[in-house]
Amino acid sequence: MGCSVRDSETIADVFLAAELRDHASHGMIRIKDYYQLWKANRINPNPNIRIVHESPSTAVVDGDNAIGMVAARKSMEIAIEKARHAGTGWVATRNSNHFGIAGYYAMMALKQEMIGICLTNANPLVAPTFSISRMMGTNPIAVAIPAKEQPHFVADFATTPIARGKLAVAEKKGEKVVYGFVQDKIGNPSDDPAILKEGGSMLTLGGDRIHGSHKGYCLTAIVDIFSAVFSGANFGPFVPPSVAYLPVLEKKVGEGTGHFFGAMRIDAFQPPMEFKTKMDEWIETFRSAKPIDGQKCILIPGDPEREAEERNMRDGIKLVPAIREDLKEIAKELDIEFD
Amino acid sequence: MGCSVRDSETIADVFLAAELRDHASHGMIRIKDYYQLWKANRINPNPNIRIVHESPSTAVVDGDNAIGMVAARKSMEIAIEKARHAGTGWVATRNSNHFGIAGYYAMMALKQEMIGICLTNANPLVAPTFSISRMMGTNPIAVAIPAKEQPHFVADFATTPIARGKLAVAEKKGEKVVYGFVQDKIGNPSDDPAILKEGGSMLTLGGDRIHGSHKGYCLTAIVDIFSAVFSGANFGPFVPPSVAYLPVLEKKVGEGTGHFFGAMRIDAFQPPMEFKTKMDEWIETFRSAKPIDGQKCILIPGDPEREAEERNMRDGIKLVPAIREDLKEIAKELDIEFD
Repeated sequence: MGCSVRDSETIADVFLAAELRDHASHGMIRIKDYYQLWKANRINPNPNIRIVHESPSTAVVDGDNAIGMVAARKSMEIAIEKARHAGTGWVATRNSNHFGIAGYYAMMALKQEMIGICLTNANPLVAPTFSISRMMGTNPIAVAIPAKEQPHFVADFATTPIARGKLAVAEKKGEKVVYGFVQDKIGNPSDDPAILKEGGSMLTLGGDRIHGSHKGYCLTAIVDIFSAVFSGANFGPFVPPSVAYLPVLEKKVGEGTGHFFGAMRIDAFQPPMEFKTKMDEWIETFRSAKPIDGQKCILIPGDPEREAEERNMRDGIKLVPAIREDLKEIAKELDIEFD
Repeated sequence: MGCSVRDSETIADVFLAAELRDHASHGMIRIKDYYQLWKANRINPNPNIRIVHESPSTAVVDGDNAIGMVAARKSMEIAIEKARHAGTGWVATRNSNHFGIAGYYAMMALKQEMIGICLTNANPLVAPTFSISRMMGTNPIAVAIPAKEQPHFVADFATTPIARGKLAVAEKKGEKVVYGFVQDKIGNPSDDPAILKEGGSMLTLGGDRIHGSHKGYCLTAIVDIFSAVFSGANFGPFVPPSVAYLPVLEKKVGEGTGHFFGAMRIDAFQPPMEFKTKMDEWIETFRSAKPIDGQKCILIPGDPEREAEERNMRDGIKLVPAIREDLKEIAKELDIEFD
């Protein structure tokens, strides 16, 4: 597609991380979407990503309509560089696109003895509390915090009860979903995973008002504002589609999709050894919480993904036949060997 | 109690803000708790609050066991000062106590053309997903973002479906609560608001695993780590009680209660006029989302509290007779006039 070798490797690395960490919904299944966006001339394989505004601890980055991974890696590198000098670094990025798993960029900080944060907005599918309008994406939050002997704390979660991809899986299997995930076009609770096709919308974390959906709405909104208002990207209902089969939106309120990145040097707060020892203690304390009868243990954020990564590194990743066919076809069109 | 005039005014101002904003659970009802902690020599009315570690954009503050409001105001002032020079300022505070409403400190940034953030940990009442152990507080998140013509965006929410105080209200009224708020001592779902007295625990936002309680757990945990591991305060189950009728905990893993504060200059990201105009546009867009039939309108975070504040400024605050009696008694003990 004309990307540089380094950019291609970054993109492949993020896709691979998603597969290894059992977030296949953000892995190879998306390659076709990215390819079709490129064919439709809707993403830029050779971007000039640059800082357009800055302070000692912040920057705004223009992604030049890059593939999301390329703009995101560069932005997180800038956040880390800012943190080296100012203790913390905060980068808001506009004019980007879908970037895979948010956790990848937060985890870039771990190797630098830093805490990493990554937020992004996304295609509008989610209704605020009391509304039937799709105003927000499933806007994820990722936070990575280094430990010493214990594995690092890595939280990476959509601010909705479930990810969009899990609705698609239920739909393909012909299964219903529990109430609290989606509503129909007039705002009635629904258990139909295909309801988005009929004007329905996803709900925020909490599900309904009494269970705190207004708190989920606050969270999703904060991610949207940090990602888009801070950077000058499109916010809320104006985030551009991440697939080529949906038309470009008529109204723009900014440039492309928005992300937000943070890097905090741990020695900006505590001597590194003390900090990491304390994180070990935190993790051990929580791991020793008493489980409900029948549950094995209490999980620490990042445990399931790390276990998946170990298993998948050992046993390999299963490539779904339909995705293999897609990749084969793309390879043929691009005249790349495929076996 | 021997506080300085300025500190007394700060404490009164935060209590008053809670009452005005209809968060009475964090208002005058707490004065007795603070008074009793002081009588038991468990809080310090004349603290020497100081920076113990810093970088250009960060500081760790030791609150010297101050009343929470006093340590928190000072810490947020330091965050704002850091932001003046570095673009953003981040302060982790240890050795503090209960500080009232988190939103108060986040909103301090608004007058400085800054975005404000405030987190705190709190007494352990909440179980992580799959656990029956009370490991975390209702750890709130407050984020205040300035707008131009529109009222500011102010989110201030516990990371549990409901606040602790609302369980107490239901209990007093003899009412049940919906499932998803609490569980009993062996982890069964419960609708009994008094279940905490029988070994039960509160649940994280999401309620149960299928509805995303593990995401609520991530959020509550992040607030705990930022507040306590960054600062050197007590984390999770070791946060000291905010009432004198509960004994001092035997085990300490740090100093007092922990908070975390952030201030970000809006011109560290965008020219202030552009930023605030864009926030107006964001707010207007969300306010015009289509409501579910029977709902008046879509709320913007901060709307309910602002409307309460306007109403209460006009009509006055209702002082519950039992609280009036408490205050009268305290006044008598301290030889203060009361009418």
